[in-house]
Amino acid sequence: MTSRIAILGTGLLGASAGLALRAAGFQGSIVGWNRGAEGAETARRMGALDSIATDPIVMARESQVILLCTPVHAILNWMEQLAGVLGPEQLLTDVGSTKAQITAAADRMFNRPGRAAFLPGHPMAGKERGGAALGDADLYRGAVWLFTDDPGWKRSPESAALVEEWRSWVGKMGSRIIDLNAERHDELVAWVSHLPQFVATALSSLLEDEVGDAPELKDVGGRGLREMTRLGASPFSMWRDIAHTNADAIQKALLALEQRLTHIRENLRTAELREEFEKANRFRKE
Amino acid sequence: MTSRIAILGTGLLGASAGLALRAAGFQGSIVGWNRGAEGAETARRMGALDSIATDPIVMARESQVILLCTPVHAILNWMEQLAGVLGPEQLLTDVGSTKAQITAAADRMFNRPGRAAFLPGHPMAGKERGGAALGDADLYRGAVWLFTDDPGWKRSPESAALVEEWRSWVGKMGSRIIDLNAERHDELVAWVSHLPQFVATALSSLLEDEVGDAPELKDVGGRGLREMTRLGASPFSMWRDIAHTNADAIQKALLALEQRLTHIRENLRTAELREEFEKANRFRKE
Repeated sequence: MTSRIAILGTGLLGASAGLALRAAGFQGSIVGWNRGAEGAETARRMGALDSIATDPIVMARESQVILLCTPVHAILNWMEQLAGVLGPEQLLTDVGSTKAQITAAADRMFNRPGRAAFLPGHPMAGKERGGAALGDADLYRGAVWLFTDDPGWKRSPESAALVEEWRSWVGKMGSRIIDLNAERHDELVAWVSHLPQFVATALSSLLEDEVGDAPELKDVGGRGLREMTRLGASPFSMWRDIAHTNADAIQKALLALEQRLTHIRENLRTAELREEFEKANRFRKE
Repeated sequence: MTSRIAILGTGLLGASAGLALRAAGFQGSIVGWNRGAEGAETARRMGALDSIATDPIVMARESQVILLCTPVHAILNWMEQLAGVLGPEQLLTDVGSTKAQITAAADRMFNRPGRAAFLPGHPMAGKERGGAALGDADLYRGAVWLFTDDPGWKRSPESAALVEEWRSWVGKMGSRIIDLNAERHDELVAWVSHLPQFVATALSSLLEDEVGDAPELKDVGGRGLREMTRLGASPFSMWRDIAHTNADAIQKALLALEQRLTHIRENLRTAELREEFEKANRFRKE
């Protein structure tokens, strides 16, 4: 039974995990560390953490489960730093948005005799703005939590038990688990998560150029415009790492959408437009 | 004071107008007609209409204010049919999504001695699905209602008073009025309404091809995906007319977005990506 969980990175996802674990009945201690001290203090005040660590390496060494809640490049960096520090009775897991590089690193440095377990995870939850202050015990409720575990990995019985226990905590936080392999994960999220984000960014950026100097005109667009640009508020700091670590799949998805828009633009007066609307209607059919 | 309003077309917008007028305290009678008898019957049962007309021309002739709530081509058609039927003590107005052709027709056939007034209107309200059954007394609350009135039009004192009274009912239904000219209207809505719609259609249609056979994967996208594709459910019947009557402005907006997406695709690993995110962030700044 896990008695001590460490959260490394106490932004929106980290703070929400602490709150959700507590709400789900986790009785052990939750300790956290954040690069900016203010974020950790906010998370502690909200009840997401029992205490704040001064040294993230010592914190990780003294915990059974360590949850990495940072952008992808920082996750890869922490994996490097912690690989030699953690042992076979510990579990390192993460919430990173792309999984191919992280899963390859897990294969290289964890999940083998004498090493800690690493369970690559990705909750499909978030908000368009980050930070501990937006932390929410219900953030993961109803969301899908993807794992790109490798059935071939050899783990110690102790760390394998921690993996099973963590999966059950994810369920208790209200998420539905889907397992898939890392390559399929990155391809899938390029379509259903990264493409919508980059489209919202492109649309928001374009509209900032076109109507940004007349804020009252944004109201004209109503709910449709608000929804289609909400993700425009997403922080570059997180999406830079996603763009870097899943560039091929994102480029493929963006190119396909550009071609689809061209097709619609060239067929505003032909029967092809009806086909596009009918196909879109099918995607949204309940 | 208006004692009888006719609603021609009792789908979502028409039924909602009846309900909203009633909720706002309109005491006169509201009569309606719809091409499909079932839609009119639904609107009447919901309380949006007092009665259903059997002949739309007779209904219009016997009403002081006639509200056209159909797609744009049908509005243009009704304007032709009603121009000779209505007189200088009557007001015809509409909720059509594009305004250049409708305003030109109003200039040609109305708003002159001996003729009825025509006030071109466009409430920025709707849902992704249509039909009287979704009618909502609050549909127009908080929305912008655009008018493309022409200050040069000469109206009879009676019809000018009906115009003023209709504008005040729009305010009582909860909408905020913005006046602008028809060309500027069509250019503006191409950016803030039509572009978001065609983007949602393109994205939904593309995703139907890519992941449509695996419905469980739609859940992976979460709230962001749901929002970015909600308008994918919009009916072709309405958008065909918009595409036809505002094609130039829509093509310009679509081309600009294609170029923006290409720019992002080619800069996933450069500093240009940061600029796009920062510009998008500015558009969404409160």
